Amino acid sequence: MINKLYDTSLSLLTDLYQLTMAYGYWKAGKAEQEAVFNLYFRKHPFQGGFTIACGLNSVIDYIQEFRFSPEDLAYIGSLKGNDGNKLFEPGFLDYLEKMEMQCNIDAIPEGTVVFPNEPLLRVQGPILQCQLLETPLLNLVNFQSLIATKAARMRLVAKDDVLLEFGLRRAQGPDGGVTASRAAYIGGFDATSNLLAGKLYDIPVKGTHAHSWVMSFDTELESFETYSQHLPNNVTLLVDTYDSLNGVRNAIEAGKSLRARGYDLGGIRLDSGDLAYLSVESRKLLDEAGFEKTNIVASNDLDEYIMDSLKIQGAKINVWGIGTKLVTAYDQPALGGVYKLAAIKSAGGEWDYKLKLSEQAIKVSTPGIQQVRRFSDNKGFVSDMIFNIENPLIGKSTMIDPYDFTKNRSFAENTHFEDLLVPIFANGKLIYSLPSIHEAKARVQDQLAHFYKGIKRFVNPHTYPVGLEKHLFDMKTELIMKLRQKEPEAL
Amino acid sequence: MINKLYDTSLSLLTDLYQLTMAYGYWKAGKAEQEAVFNLYFRKHPFQGGFTIACGLNSVIDYIQEFRFSPEDLAYIGSLKGNDGNKLFEPGFLDYLEKMEMQCNIDAIPEGTVVFPNEPLLRVQGPILQCQLLETPLLNLVNFQSLIATKAARMRLVAKDDVLLEFGLRRAQGPDGGVTASRAAYIGGFDATSNLLAGKLYDIPVKGTHAHSWVMSFDTELESFETYSQHLPNNVTLLVDTYDSLNGVRNAIEAGKSLRARGYDLGGIRLDSGDLAYLSVESRKLLDEAGFEKTNIVASNDLDEYIMDSLKIQGAKINVWGIGTKLVTAYDQPALGGVYKLAAIKSAGGEWDYKLKLSEQAIKVSTPGIQQVRRFSDNKGFVSDMIFNIENPLIGKSTMIDPYDFTKNRSFAENTHFEDLLVPIFANGKLIYSLPSIHEAKARVQDQLAHFYKGIKRFVNPHTYPVGLEKHLFDMKTELIMKLRQKEPEAL
Repeated sequence: MINKLYDTSLSLLTDLYQLTMAYGYWKAGKAEQEAVFNLYFRKHPFQGGFTIACGLNSVIDYIQEFRFSPEDLAYIGSLKGNDGNKLFEPGFLDYLEKMEMQCNIDAIPEGTVVFPNEPLLRVQGPILQCQLLETPLLNLVNFQSLIATKAARMRLVAKDDVLLEFGLRRAQGPDGGVTASRAAYIGGFDATSNLLAGKLYDIPVKGTHAHSWVMSFDTELESFETYSQHLPNNVTLLVDTYDSLNGVRNAIEAGKSLRARGYDLGGIRLDSGDLAYLSVESRKLLDEAGFEKTNIVASNDLDEYIMDSLKIQGAKINVWGIGTKLVTAYDQPALGGVYKLAAIKSAGGEWDYKLKLSEQAIKVSTPGIQQVRRFSDNKGFVSDMIFNIENPLIGKSTMIDPYDFTKNRSFAENTHFEDLLVPIFANGKLIYSLPSIHEAKARVQDQLAHFYKGIKRFVNPHTYPVGLEKHLFDMKTELIMKLRQKEPEAL
Repeated sequence: MINKLYDTSLSLLTDLYQLTMAYGYWKAGKAEQEAVFNLYFRKHPFQGGFTIACGLNSVIDYIQEFRFSPEDLAYIGSLKGNDGNKLFEPGFLDYLEKMEMQCNIDAIPEGTVVFPNEPLLRVQGPILQCQLLETPLLNLVNFQSLIATKAARMRLVAKDDVLLEFGLRRAQGPDGGVTASRAAYIGGFDATSNLLAGKLYDIPVKGTHAHSWVMSFDTELESFETYSQHLPNNVTLLVDTYDSLNGVRNAIEAGKSLRARGYDLGGIRLDSGDLAYLSVESRKLLDEAGFEKTNIVASNDLDEYIMDSLKIQGAKINVWGIGTKLVTAYDQPALGGVYKLAAIKSAGGEWDYKLKLSEQAIKVSTPGIQQVRRFSDNKGFVSDMIFNIENPLIGKSTMIDPYDFTKNRSFAENTHFEDLLVPIFANGKLIYSLPSIHEAKARVQDQLAHFYKGIKRFVNPHTYPVGLEKHLFDMKTELIMKLRQKEPEAL
């Protein structure tokens, strides 16, 4: 559903260079050469210690809908180069028109806790098709994983409080809002104010009212009484239009009328000022008037750091309305996921492993048809090992820290583990039964509960050990050495 | 076109509270009461001195498509309150189903330079309808204005260099990418890599190739030669897969083959490392080999500050490929636009002016049916004055600084001016002929050229004077005083 954007096919939701490379592969007779790409990120967002995988459902929708429409092909056919001549010959358009998605895709399910360098998706298939998918897959997975992670951080602070996502008005476009609502729910939010997200994704919707409601009446009390009269089972009153504590008093009056009619005051909402002070004073006023169960909702540019600070200050807030800082991932609005070629099949049918060099070790990619094995003991998860599935693991396995080869650890054959990537598409056909959004949401909390708490700290979190299986590590090292000889440094 | 998201009506692209308020207005007999809302922001993004208005074309699409589908109504009808009973009675769904958009909307055209507190849009109509539009209008205008502004800042640094937008893979969802491409083009970019944006909005598309292209061949030179052979009129070679300067040498070889076949080497692209040093060395290598006209494209997490620094360092870059930092507005990923009730018509047909109080002067809203008058002299624009159109300006007019009433300036009746808001919708019907994207783009540069250069500085920019016309200022002050009496402070 999510990908039916723009009332158009989304096959053009990619970069021109994917198409020019596709053309190059096709002209060079390489279009169908089998390749493997891994989609991964290099660093946790928010200087954190974990990331939540999210976006697979959109990837599935995207690939299932993938086709070049006649309109798309006409557009592609119209593209011109620097000299004003067309970029592509007609035979290529015919090829694209008839093309059917043949890729195998394995992926880590939504809601899984993941770490740098782990392939969230592995795409295997004709290099031309793998290449076309690079941009949309990154777009879908980068953003949703970012927001699910941000939401999970807020859930860690909120503990058992209610978390409401209110971000649509400040989100990066309609989709930035609707998709963020979904990712936030998976990451740990209870509900959204966004009706379209509620309808599309079966997310509970919640809301209060705006200042304009209050301002449209002669007095605040009149506005509260009127709202309570007509929506008696949905009353959370925004009290800061004029003065917050006076607003609480008016809300209590409205609450008394509600009780007289068999309803109750659900909550009051503070949206400005000193939330620590105001929430404590509001709680007192409410309790004194017998409204001990009335929620205190707070909003106003909140994030996990401000929530944490408010809790330390003893704020009496039990419902948090969070918008901008969540849906835009304000302090780091992009996850730097990449999609790198890791192997290509030679004419002889052998895998030719590939990597990209860089002066920075963190930017050297890892070759291989990768899978991630997550080992655990009776206390929880202990290590993740990235290995090449072409290199079956027999007996004890050893993993090496990719950035410090002197660090390694071994796992006996009977160590408990789970392999994280599961088959999603085989030869372009969906073979995965997508968990519900509620299952993905539950997975986040279940996963987090099984990790050492140090990775969940905001400041200097513990680094969970992720290594390369020894054969893969050795193969990568050898490839680097070979490449540095073949393509010598100029300096 | 842009709003045909999700293969569904977008009327639910709003917050639940807009709908509960709508219901409240309807039940209270106020649904059709005429109201005026202003959409404005309080602070320039990026600590800058100007903002570019953008997103009106999406607003127009949104409003023209506005209707509640049977599916939407079924969803709304299913919503429940805290007690498990339905929120809305069936008569309200009938009302929504039959509702036709009746608002008058005036707005500042896309590409106009705007300032804090100026209404980018003014919506006048039945309060129920105005309220439903709050969330989508903010969503569309906030994001697009943010990105157009970011792009305009980059254009200021780039001067006559070429600016390419490469952000789709890191954007906040598909729409975050496609809409950002459009806003970036309006703000001053020359082209995008995003094919869907190219097709939808008539934006030129440009691109190079990826590391995977190079890695899929045995040697970099072979990959360059193959690319040049098949796409001879689109050759910009990415040189940093193994070693950048060695890559430039290989590119020069490919360039020689291109020349032998009557083509030329369009450019080389640096994507990592010390871009200042590498660009200078690359320029030398290219020039020595007779490729003086070959472009040097740079990319790698660039923004206006890095571009500025690279230019100061003497970098020989003349084409800039910019992604993440532009399309997510990385250093401030949201513009804090708000939408405030400013007037409501009383039963007697008189305007009852409205404002929202706050302890912070910057958060007190301004009442009135607002228009913005931009005064100019022979050197350019000198001041903007916000006034109430119900208060016709006759003779000399005086404006007052809203945050310092001791500061004011007067304008003689014959001072040259332009009123910025123009009619877009009258009684729900579009009466505006939307300029082309190319005209909106040209407007940005034309506007910026007419402002004092101090507002275009990145550090401590000059504050362009924007004031309230004296009658409006006095009315606002009087309203504040009255409200503070009527809704007394509790402290």
